[in-house]
Amino acid sequence: MRGLLTSCLVLMLAVPVFADEGMWLPNQLPMIGQALEAAGLDTPPANFADLTGDPMGAIVSLGGCSASFVSPQGLVVTNHHCAYGTIQFNSTPENNLLENGFVARSPEDELQAAPGARVYVTLAVSDVTDEILAKVPDEADGAARFEAIENAEKELIAGCEETPGHRCRVASFHGGLQFRLYDQLEICDVRLAYAPPSSIGKYGGDIDNWMWPRHTGDFSIYRAYVGPDGLPAEPSPDNVPFQPKHWLKIGRDGVDEGDFVMVVGFPGRTNRYRLASEVDEAITWSYPRRIKRYQEMLDIIARETEGRTEAQIAYAGLISGLNNGLKNNQGMLAGFAHSKSVERKQAMEVELAAWIAADPDREARWGAAVSELESILDKQRAHRERDEALSSIKWNQLLSTTSRAYRLARENEKPNAERKMGYQERDLPRIRARIERSARTYDARVDMALLRRALERYDEVPASERVPALDNWFGLDGELETAEAIAGTLHNMYMATDLADSAGRLALLDLDRAALEASEDPFVRLAVALYPTWIEMEKVEEALDGRLLEARPRFMEALLAFETALGAEIYPDANGTLRVTFGNVIGYTPQDAVVYLPFTTAEGVAAKATGEVPFDAPQPLLDAIAAADYGPYRSEAVGSLPVCFLSDVDTTGGNSGSATLDSKGRLVGLLFDGNWESMISDWDFLTDVTRSIHADVRYMLWVMDRIDGAENLLREMGIKPSFAAGSER
Amino acid sequence: MRGLLTSCLVLMLAVPVFADEGMWLPNQLPMIGQALEAAGLDTPPANFADLTGDPMGAIVSLGGCSASFVSPQGLVVTNHHCAYGTIQFNSTPENNLLENGFVARSPEDELQAAPGARVYVTLAVSDVTDEILAKVPDEADGAARFEAIENAEKELIAGCEETPGHRCRVASFHGGLQFRLYDQLEICDVRLAYAPPSSIGKYGGDIDNWMWPRHTGDFSIYRAYVGPDGLPAEPSPDNVPFQPKHWLKIGRDGVDEGDFVMVVGFPGRTNRYRLASEVDEAITWSYPRRIKRYQEMLDIIARETEGRTEAQIAYAGLISGLNNGLKNNQGMLAGFAHSKSVERKQAMEVELAAWIAADPDREARWGAAVSELESILDKQRAHRERDEALSSIKWNQLLSTTSRAYRLARENEKPNAERKMGYQERDLPRIRARIERSARTYDARVDMALLRRALERYDEVPASERVPALDNWFGLDGELETAEAIAGTLHNMYMATDLADSAGRLALLDLDRAALEASEDPFVRLAVALYPTWIEMEKVEEALDGRLLEARPRFMEALLAFETALGAEIYPDANGTLRVTFGNVIGYTPQDAVVYLPFTTAEGVAAKATGEVPFDAPQPLLDAIAAADYGPYRSEAVGSLPVCFLSDVDTTGGNSGSATLDSKGRLVGLLFDGNWESMISDWDFLTDVTRSIHADVRYMLWVMDRIDGAENLLREMGIKPSFAAGSER
Repeated sequence: MRGLLTSCLVLMLAVPVFADEGMWLPNQLPMIGQALEAAGLDTPPANFADLTGDPMGAIVSLGGCSASFVSPQGLVVTNHHCAYGTIQFNSTPENNLLENGFVARSPEDELQAAPGARVYVTLAVSDVTDEILAKVPDEADGAARFEAIENAEKELIAGCEETPGHRCRVASFHGGLQFRLYDQLEICDVRLAYAPPSSIGKYGGDIDNWMWPRHTGDFSIYRAYVGPDGLPAEPSPDNVPFQPKHWLKIGRDGVDEGDFVMVVGFPGRTNRYRLASEVDEAITWSYPRRIKRYQEMLDIIARETEGRTEAQIAYAGLISGLNNGLKNNQGMLAGFAHSKSVERKQAMEVELAAWIAADPDREARWGAAVSELESILDKQRAHRERDEALSSIKWNQLLSTTSRAYRLARENEKPNAERKMGYQERDLPRIRARIERSARTYDARVDMALLRRALERYDEVPASERVPALDNWFGLDGELETAEAIAGTLHNMYMATDLADSAGRLALLDLDRAALEASEDPFVRLAVALYPTWIEMEKVEEALDGRLLEARPRFMEALLAFETALGAEIYPDANGTLRVTFGNVIGYTPQDAVVYLPFTTAEGVAAKATGEVPFDAPQPLLDAIAAADYGPYRSEAVGSLPVCFLSDVDTTGGNSGSATLDSKGRLVGLLFDGNWESMISDWDFLTDVTRSIHADVRYMLWVMDRIDGAENLLREMGIKPSFAAGSER
Repeated sequence: MRGLLTSCLVLMLAVPVFADEGMWLPNQLPMIGQALEAAGLDTPPANFADLTGDPMGAIVSLGGCSASFVSPQGLVVTNHHCAYGTIQFNSTPENNLLENGFVARSPEDELQAAPGARVYVTLAVSDVTDEILAKVPDEADGAARFEAIENAEKELIAGCEETPGHRCRVASFHGGLQFRLYDQLEICDVRLAYAPPSSIGKYGGDIDNWMWPRHTGDFSIYRAYVGPDGLPAEPSPDNVPFQPKHWLKIGRDGVDEGDFVMVVGFPGRTNRYRLASEVDEAITWSYPRRIKRYQEMLDIIARETEGRTEAQIAYAGLISGLNNGLKNNQGMLAGFAHSKSVERKQAMEVELAAWIAADPDREARWGAAVSELESILDKQRAHRERDEALSSIKWNQLLSTTSRAYRLARENEKPNAERKMGYQERDLPRIRARIERSARTYDARVDMALLRRALERYDEVPASERVPALDNWFGLDGELETAEAIAGTLHNMYMATDLADSAGRLALLDLDRAALEASEDPFVRLAVALYPTWIEMEKVEEALDGRLLEARPRFMEALLAFETALGAEIYPDANGTLRVTFGNVIGYTPQDAVVYLPFTTAEGVAAKATGEVPFDAPQPLLDAIAAADYGPYRSEAVGSLPVCFLSDVDTTGGNSGSATLDSKGRLVGLLFDGNWESMISDWDFLTDVTRSIHADVRYMLWVMDRIDGAENLLREMGIKPSFAAGSER
């Protein structure tokens, strides 16, 4: 299989690509040099293949967000919404940093980031496809294939993490056609150096989320610290600023309409190469189902927290997440309504099939690729109603904690290397942190009401799909009064449990199998009762996943060969690994007779101001805008101070906080959102309307300089402040 | 006073004006010829001063809407929404013309318009200021002034209407500074010749109402009929098409961005010359109060009609009107929030005061003008809470009918000429038509619930403001349980009344005073009981109005002189009389980074199509759009078939259906709406964003030609059809 792959890849090189679509691996950039040059890149593309060189050495991950070094002393710039947890964590009733913002006038003033905050510096990437596939027995079935690959990955990670301070992962590409090992330095002393108030950094809030025109100054600044020896260390006063080999230069003059931009970061997940049937399932089943479930959950939370302020605060984060998901999923369906994505996929599959059938060699290799893939997907879909109901049950805070603790105890009976991924020693801090965080996000009444509804939904699945252990526990024996049975059992469980506070839940992690099996806590007992079922279902799922790990690469191999024959260069779907996307500053036409310009201006901030959250622009900001006091940050071309801009680069969740670079690799903005029309870009990139939204570096600098007088930070970033020292704060 | 006025008017001539703002009297056009030429007019402005010439002879009023002749055989083009009542009236369950549209393939197929439909052809306008003011005694107080002017108007109208088939009115300008007599031919046999389906003519419905981008084909075609003698006649098969002296030529090639356009029609009402305090009152009191009341009414109607389909249908029109008013009033407040209208008015008043004070002559004439006006306005405002509550009570369908009938009976005791305006013989058909129409819009439960709420609101006015007759009737004696007293009385009244059906209500109009006073119907008895109060309040109001009829002209005289001194030409506020406004085809910037282009396209119709009302574009239309089958109606400049366009002409309610003319006076569209930002233009014209919305003549013709095959009508309008005879209907 590998031989074939290599020959395909050779064919792929040096072909034209669209300037906008594509989340490229850094090592692909030299191969698409012509397209980069055509778009306007003014530095050798080969520079980007050197992960420890300039500028790639400056690019970091925060785990879930992207960021970049902007000073030799470890200043890291990212989005305000990526630092939100830290800003919230450091807020007190006396000094609410979300409201007031924060400026460290010197490093001593910097604030420790929230527990678990990390800066990951990518040190090396290596192709480990051969090592991994060599471990798969020739005639392996799905289960064996899955296990062999998982074991190979664990082994590679363990070897990589032998170096202290390193965190490693194996990522699969094209559904398992390729595997790469990522070796990252894990910096765990992270501090907050600067944050604008939410009235700048989150201006427009949920209303403007996903929307253009946008006026959000979505940026904040961290500093990374390491031990005196230069190696990652737990937070300590003895630690010193991390000195990166490379940091981004600031492009104070920004970019103009039409200019080249590139975004470097860690996009989370896309599904660009899925089958038409998979897109169709997302449109007709997954998103509608999720919308319904989110709406149901929001209704339940609203009902159960009514009049209880503390419970409302506990669930504020979840509510915000559900609303965001709801808006996203609804926008997704709205986008698909006009995109003809399924039709285009179907047409492509017909062409692909014809191309395969036209050659006996191709027919022999790939003739059955699509049908094999479809048959596995059909098997997964057969249980989707049940699986969706069960996932809601498993998601319950108490049950998920006891299930995880019991699983951990069972895995702990094995040597560390043989434990399931996610339950090894390296995973313990994250499991613990998750339970710690849940201390502030739990309310028994809400937790119970959500579980009750999940059980009611489960109770609607047909007899052949049922989980006997669950039916037995809740008395779902098909008799009447199911709802009462569920409610009664749940009520007793929540009355009897000792796990209402997170200390109790954390303590579970220290118990061994015997201790847990002897527990009388109803949620522990339920977890123990359900364990064999979950394990059995996991095995079935993994066997299918193992088959997918053979079928998907085969399909992708065919698709890659086909696309290459058509002259197209191919990038892999996003999978949380380091990517580069490039394009140009460009507006779009969202609908007939409407044109969106690529830049918003400070005057637009003032025009939206109502004095009420989320349009509560601070008065000093409004005064400075009224005076048009923009100094050198004003753009002649835009005719004002640019606040945000649009480009046609290709990004998704995980890219938040990514550096936006100009043609010379200078920082000219921060990627922080996509537009409404880009929501379906996880599945389908629409050249005409898919746009990314960036905070303009000129607005960021102006806010730091004119509004906050953050002179020390500006100087450290190589910017000479332009306004008098008098901060307006 | 007249001498002074004349000298002011002389000063006003031949000064530059803005191209966009201004609803000009036709006789003003020669005086602003330079501005018209600068905007691009290509015909002598003097043409427009001849009301029976070309093109003004083609312009007609429908009473509430505007329209124009477009053929020598009396075809009249207006908006679909202006012909809506007629289309609805002719619809049957078997053939719903609102859904299907209508094409008369020959005049015999044409359908009689709804009762009361009229076409008014303006024959002459004369300045009657001197005649009217000559009747006002030198030292007349408010009441005497009001009565003298009303009597003078009645006399002029009666004289004018001696010619059969004529309908006349006296309109006051600048608050009573000038009066003009309008003599119109009243054509009362009006028939429907063409209407597109609502899925074209009302496409976008309430959602797109007031909005850009717009895709509504808002047009329909009537034909005017007269007796064989050429004079207006009641509908009859013997009638013949009216042959207007002039009709508009169709400008099939339409207009491009930047082109000159003018709109000729009958704008209803503007308040451009009100004091700052009046604008402030509208913003802080009138609109918020009205929004609250409309919302309250909508809630009551929704509650009381729940589950009762017939009642829902009966109130559909009112609901639509209330929603439209709500959207309008909310948009008004949103517009005022950023317009700084009050501040600019205040600044202007300060300047005016300084200009007046700078000259002893001016000071003597106008020094007290503003303060006198303010003092009268204050007197009116003193009772505004009570007046607003009482107006809701008077608005009740049963009580308004019995009150009107009793008032009519009282007025009938006098000779016709001495009766109150609105209760003369010439007014009877309208009073009757109104009651007839109410047959389909009445439901006792809703009517009672709305009256109950109105009474509860009245009950909140302070003791000094109360109406004893009302208090006595409803037992509002200040004791507890007011709500129950009102509910009980109302319940008994609605149980006892015979007026539930419109026949009973119509019969009231034939009863004399004695018969009505002997009636035992509770609503008649209440009307009789309240009559003295209403008359007394009317007298107080008229005395204030009489004082306003002196104070407002004095202020306007000062303002006109001041503006003239500044070099500005002045147009009077809209008052339902014939006006001309001109400007250019131009888009605008609704907010930062957003540009609205001036043309929408057929592709935009398809993009909005959802298959659901109001975006239920017909399939043949969508097919023709998909095929881009636009024939000669395609615009090269727009790159497609234009559907609607924006211009900066100055229009308001009443202008609906107005002809939009190009620089040579050809019909290039129909005015049918203003944009969201134009809502406050009744008070304040904002050059940057106030825009009018027109249906493009090319879309109108294409729909008639390509979709409906209305060859006969097109040929009559001078257009050679471009598509094969096969209609798609």
